[in-house]
Amino acid sequence: MPITIAVDIGGTQLRAASYTPDSLTPLHFARTTTQPSSPSDLLTTPLERLQALIASIWPADDTVNAISVAAPGPTNPYQGIIYEAPNIPGWINIFLSQTLEERFHVPVLLGNDANLAALGEWKFGVGRGHHNLIYLTISTGIGGGVIVDDRLLLGAQGLAAELGHITVMPDGPMCGCGHRGHLEAFSSGTGIANWVKEQISQGVPSSLPKDCPLTARMVSEAAKQGDHLSIMALERAGSFLGRAIADFLHIFNPSLIILGGGVSKSGPLFLHPLETSIKENVLNPHYLDNLQLAEASFGDQAGLIGALALAVTQ
Amino acid sequence: MPITIAVDIGGTQLRAASYTPDSLTPLHFARTTTQPSSPSDLLTTPLERLQALIASIWPADDTVNAISVAAPGPTNPYQGIIYEAPNIPGWINIFLSQTLEERFHVPVLLGNDANLAALGEWKFGVGRGHHNLIYLTISTGIGGGVIVDDRLLLGAQGLAAELGHITVMPDGPMCGCGHRGHLEAFSSGTGIANWVKEQISQGVPSSLPKDCPLTARMVSEAAKQGDHLSIMALERAGSFLGRAIADFLHIFNPSLIILGGGVSKSGPLFLHPLETSIKENVLNPHYLDNLQLAEASFGDQAGLIGALALAVTQ
Repeated sequence: MPITIAVDIGGTQLRAASYTPDSLTPLHFARTTTQPSSPSDLLTTPLERLQALIASIWPADDTVNAISVAAPGPTNPYQGIIYEAPNIPGWINIFLSQTLEERFHVPVLLGNDANLAALGEWKFGVGRGHHNLIYLTISTGIGGGVIVDDRLLLGAQGLAAELGHITVMPDGPMCGCGHRGHLEAFSSGTGIANWVKEQISQGVPSSLPKDCPLTARMVSEAAKQGDHLSIMALERAGSFLGRAIADFLHIFNPSLIILGGGVSKSGPLFLHPLETSIKENVLNPHYLDNLQLAEASFGDQAGLIGALALAVTQ
Repeated sequence: MPITIAVDIGGTQLRAASYTPDSLTPLHFARTTTQPSSPSDLLTTPLERLQALIASIWPADDTVNAISVAAPGPTNPYQGIIYEAPNIPGWINIFLSQTLEERFHVPVLLGNDANLAALGEWKFGVGRGHHNLIYLTISTGIGGGVIVDDRLLLGAQGLAAELGHITVMPDGPMCGCGHRGHLEAFSSGTGIANWVKEQISQGVPSSLPKDCPLTARMVSEAAKQGDHLSIMALERAGSFLGRAIADFLHIFNPSLIILGGGVSKSGPLFLHPLETSIKENVLNPHYLDNLQLAEASFGDQAGLIGALALAVTQ
């Protein structure tokens, strides 16, 4: 039976899973930390660790038809190059497909993790039957993936669908990418936590602790307990995201928006201002005809399922 | 010889042209005003005038294989409906394809004019050979069209690629569509003229007349003569457009940006800040690899050539 090996490269963890053609349940699954976790760890580079991980689930008796890899950051899927993996120091211009093909002697496919998550939702998840959809993962950062006419939007070099990095406020807060005013700087977990910290440092009262590191999850919990500043923070993040989604409706006119990532689970205090903002900002009501908003299907398996979808749609 | 009839519906003029399969030079061409120009004009509605115009170039001896129509504003190309034609009062939910099919008994195709202009550039113009391109027309308003993987981006109902209506500054100046802060409100001819008027009314010195209606063309001319306010106006418009184009690069990663419309002909005082702003705002330099910026090919024939492209790519 031909086996597909899906790989998800994260800043913290590397995951690999083998799949038969008829199931989303892995035959074998393995994971390891991206960086060595102890000084005695002999495999010192993420690339060595990745190869050992793949080898550890390599089937003894079956044929592998492809290795399919989801990677963070900008990648060139046509040439199999990771231009940059934001959370893996030193990963600049990694010729990943070539390296893995030389080692494993099977075709290697590569894609950006959020792009592939969109493809996974379209092929196997809540996006089935939709021809035009947008996937947004709202987490530490904001990633995007778009299906246009049943095809993954990649662009000339595969760098398309960086939806977290559209400018929603010129000269706004600094984004993780080094530019100001991007959607990610407002509505990601990092953006939410940064804004709350700034407000507290300016003396705005809050039940949140003053002196420990803040996370968006803490803000979300405090909001549910009625903390006014935290409620404002979710409202601000949801509202900016809704405005950006209205832009994406005008640009792509999809029939489905899928939201994934931890921040999207913040409940009505985030989702209600988001929906209000979409409605306030659309050009005309036809953009909302039959538009659905849905939760992502695969949680932390999104990268693996997406990589699998890439392999089966080749 | 099979003939295609292309039609361009504008707020001021209606144009129709007949084409043989092998040429972009019309066999016959006719135009009329969209509204009656004298009280004695018997054809009183734009729809009647459109039908008479098409009939006037109908070939006596040849077969017509399709009528293909470029229309302003939001259209549903799948159902042949013009949802709204911004400059034709009363044109709301016009079932254009059905009306013309009943009258002329040939298939009727419909698309938004800026979308079709993009398709025309890809098929016949400066976009030939590019698989991913963006067309922007910067005129009274700002229209957009996008080619993704050699196909016209339409979306679920055909409302995609409204690139002039992305928000570049929340709570910014009022756009023609009734929302605030859209790209069109900053960088269109209307946006430029409005900003200059506002500055003059606030006492900013300028060589431009205070009491007559201002146009972007006047601003552009004054800028070339050294008027500081006019230079600033073009710089502001170009700079906002460049930032938006950087967003479009992140979203679509095209290999070509095509600029059409009168404002795009304002020369270096507009184009230089635009290019600087693109470079300053791209996430990483790979977006600029092999990216070309080009002038639109077809001037005021863009709608007709685009409609022809729609017919020949069916």
